[in-house]
Amino acid sequence: MKTGTLYLIPTTLGGETVNDIIPAEVQTKVTELRCFIVENIKSARRFLRKVDRTFPIDDCEFFILNHRTDVGELYSFLQPAMKGNDIGLMSDAGCPGVADPGGAIISLAHSKGLKIHPFVGPSSILMTLMGSGFSGQNFIFHGYLPKERKSRISALKRFESDTRKTRMTHLFMDTPYRNMNVLDDLLNVLADPTMLCIASNLTLPSQDIRSMTIKEWRTKAYDLSKRPAMFAIGTVV
Amino acid sequence: MKTGTLYLIPTTLGGETVNDIIPAEVQTKVTELRCFIVENIKSARRFLRKVDRTFPIDDCEFFILNHRTDVGELYSFLQPAMKGNDIGLMSDAGCPGVADPGGAIISLAHSKGLKIHPFVGPSSILMTLMGSGFSGQNFIFHGYLPKERKSRISALKRFESDTRKTRMTHLFMDTPYRNMNVLDDLLNVLADPTMLCIASNLTLPSQDIRSMTIKEWRTKAYDLSKRPAMFAIGTVV
Repeated sequence: MKTGTLYLIPTTLGGETVNDIIPAEVQTKVTELRCFIVENIKSARRFLRKVDRTFPIDDCEFFILNHRTDVGELYSFLQPAMKGNDIGLMSDAGCPGVADPGGAIISLAHSKGLKIHPFVGPSSILMTLMGSGFSGQNFIFHGYLPKERKSRISALKRFESDTRKTRMTHLFMDTPYRNMNVLDDLLNVLADPTMLCIASNLTLPSQDIRSMTIKEWRTKAYDLSKRPAMFAIGTVV
Repeated sequence: MKTGTLYLIPTTLGGETVNDIIPAEVQTKVTELRCFIVENIKSARRFLRKVDRTFPIDDCEFFILNHRTDVGELYSFLQPAMKGNDIGLMSDAGCPGVADPGGAIISLAHSKGLKIHPFVGPSSILMTLMGSGFSGQNFIFHGYLPKERKSRISALKRFESDTRKTRMTHLFMDTPYRNMNVLDDLLNVLADPTMLCIASNLTLPSQDIRSMTIKEWRTKAYDLSKRPAMFAIGTVV
């Protein structure tokens, strides 16, 4: 029997404009699916409604995959695909498998011989890299910074010294309520000429991307406390 | 006077289906622009025609930005934006500013106080990361591998030993005519249980993503000599 495909469905980064931001082929495929593995059921239902107001959500099967999901359950999530039905995997926001728990089900699907089909979609990592003006020849995404201040500062200093040597672009993030602490640390510990890019509210009407030296950043007041943000330290090419 | 915005316009990865893959808001914005900075004039014109068959290409201004462009010329490319007109930056394929020469004009635009607006679009790096099933919590893109075999092999071994220690996903690529040499090296020098993902012809109908151990890869015949491919070495989460 032909097995189903696991489609990796990107969702928006919190904006309302699904039809503007999510490519047409993703929307078309989504309306054909009736089985979903989702990080957050509420945001998944909202997304489906936005793709198609008449989407038969109540006829769909949903499995929840988040950090509390028991690994032992995962194989049962793939049963519909083993029986020939396609499945959609959706993250809470953005692309499944990137900085979310989706990887576990994707690797299990590979090991069961299922076809994996990622789609094009919003990624704050990629959009920050694009918008920074820093080298996009090689880059590293570190995920969340260490919570503890001393380790965080030593990580930031390491990124700075590495980009000077290798021109590598270093991307990292934190939760919005810690953004101002991160910015304080950046302005306190990095050197005047080091380039810092901050991209916030990506894909929203209030999207803002600024890239300048630490010395210039120190002269600006910038409130990031309620804006999802991505930071980059890098080298101008 | 209000200055213009530099829009970062993603293009397809070689496929024909612009309207399916490029988000609607990108297509809408493109049709409003009359000034473009492009890596390749021929593929840029083809892209514009696909977005809108009636697009007035002959009324547009094009500046060429590739690896032969003199840095001294760059500021003149931004003149339309300094005078208040919006500009679109387009790579040969995929997202401007990622593994292309676009970074130079983006950083210059930042320094001139222009607004930078990246859009969502296709990235073989991101789609490979999504499809691999490897950790997407942190990852590194190395760009092209060293051409010289000994350095290439030592790079591959470094990626393998690093992912064992840190679970970091390592992504890299090469030109299609060297893909089979890279695959040979991977199968010869990496250890049996190391996980390798190969994603090829991304966004095309023949898109294929496989993720398995080096030991399993050794048992498969796989012709990559004419397929653009991205490789990843990583750890299953």
